[in-house]
Amino acid sequence: MKNRVITISREFGSGGRTIGKKVAEQLGISCYDAELIQKLAKESGFAESYIKEAGEYTPHGFLSLAFSNRAQGPTNEDILWDLQYKVITELAGKGPCVIVGRCADYILREKADCLNVFIHADMAFRAERIVNVYGEREQSPEQRIRDKDKRRAAYHRFYTDMKWGHAQNYHITLNSGVFGIDRCVEIICGLF
Amino acid sequence: MKNRVITISREFGSGGRTIGKKVAEQLGISCYDAELIQKLAKESGFAESYIKEAGEYTPHGFLSLAFSNRAQGPTNEDILWDLQYKVITELAGKGPCVIVGRCADYILREKADCLNVFIHADMAFRAERIVNVYGEREQSPEQRIRDKDKRRAAYHRFYTDMKWGHAQNYHITLNSGVFGIDRCVEIICGLF
Repeated sequence: MKNRVITISREFGSGGRTIGKKVAEQLGISCYDAELIQKLAKESGFAESYIKEAGEYTPHGFLSLAFSNRAQGPTNEDILWDLQYKVITELAGKGPCVIVGRCADYILREKADCLNVFIHADMAFRAERIVNVYGEREQSPEQRIRDKDKRRAAYHRFYTDMKWGHAQNYHITLNSGVFGIDRCVEIICGLF
Repeated sequence: MKNRVITISREFGSGGRTIGKKVAEQLGISCYDAELIQKLAKESGFAESYIKEAGEYTPHGFLSLAFSNRAQGPTNEDILWDLQYKVITELAGKGPCVIVGRCADYILREKADCLNVFIHADMAFRAERIVNVYGEREQSPEQRIRDKDKRRAAYHRFYTDMKWGHAQNYHITLNSGVFGIDRCVEIICGLF
């Protein structure tokens, strides 16, 4: 019997990560977020590869993916993708959990019994939220949101060929700005 | 205070209409489906216009919308759209209700306090369902679904310029094939 895994994809600032953590808490299962997965992947081997191809990788350079030169072998993004793929597959094999981001919905599509969730909200809700959560930056919150969402969509599209934010790719999508974080948590827990 | 209206957009065969009816029953409010709205619109004036431009209108000709010649004035589709627009606005003004299809989400976006829902399901679930509900046809169920969804998406896009099935356009989207009709009804009623 495959493990039950909740995957959460989300627009930047929509509270998807917070929702994931709260869902995991309520259900008493683990929550792995995008940063943690990236960290685990790097620890498991990225450091070496990074040294070999130093300079090409930029932590926020996903938009340039399509233009990377693969003629000389895999890019650092590709290596990191492979490592994340392995880490996510391993985590899902350990037991029921919540995984936020990193295309876990795609990676686990035949490996786990997934509940695939997408969280979004309107610009005003997200702009206010990212300033509260991450603080002010030189760039406007709206510009930060547009940049980050573009990167997520491009990353998702490049590695999965699935359309990010398309209802048909998820079992449920929720507007956290309208329902609020806690109501979203409640609905997702009810469906687990 | 604006009336609370649940709008349901749906893929063909996903059970969106059934869900709408059951939600309305449980909440004790009216349910208006696409066919009813079209009927009301026609009764309220389409017949005359139809006679004037007889022949151009085909009940299932929405895909040809973009190619209709508007140089000679509004097409019958445009006239029907205007009438539906008025009918939907009037119905939403009468009291809380469920409206299935006909771009009600777009029409009521500033006129009612809407809960915008999109229902979808995978092809196998829908194919089985349309044969059970509407019977066999010469065309395969899969082909009927693809044709109908294409028409709905084109119709929606043409009159609203919103992307049909894009999570961000709805407050909640649900996969009825995974959760089942009754679970979807329960979730929507809980959010009303």
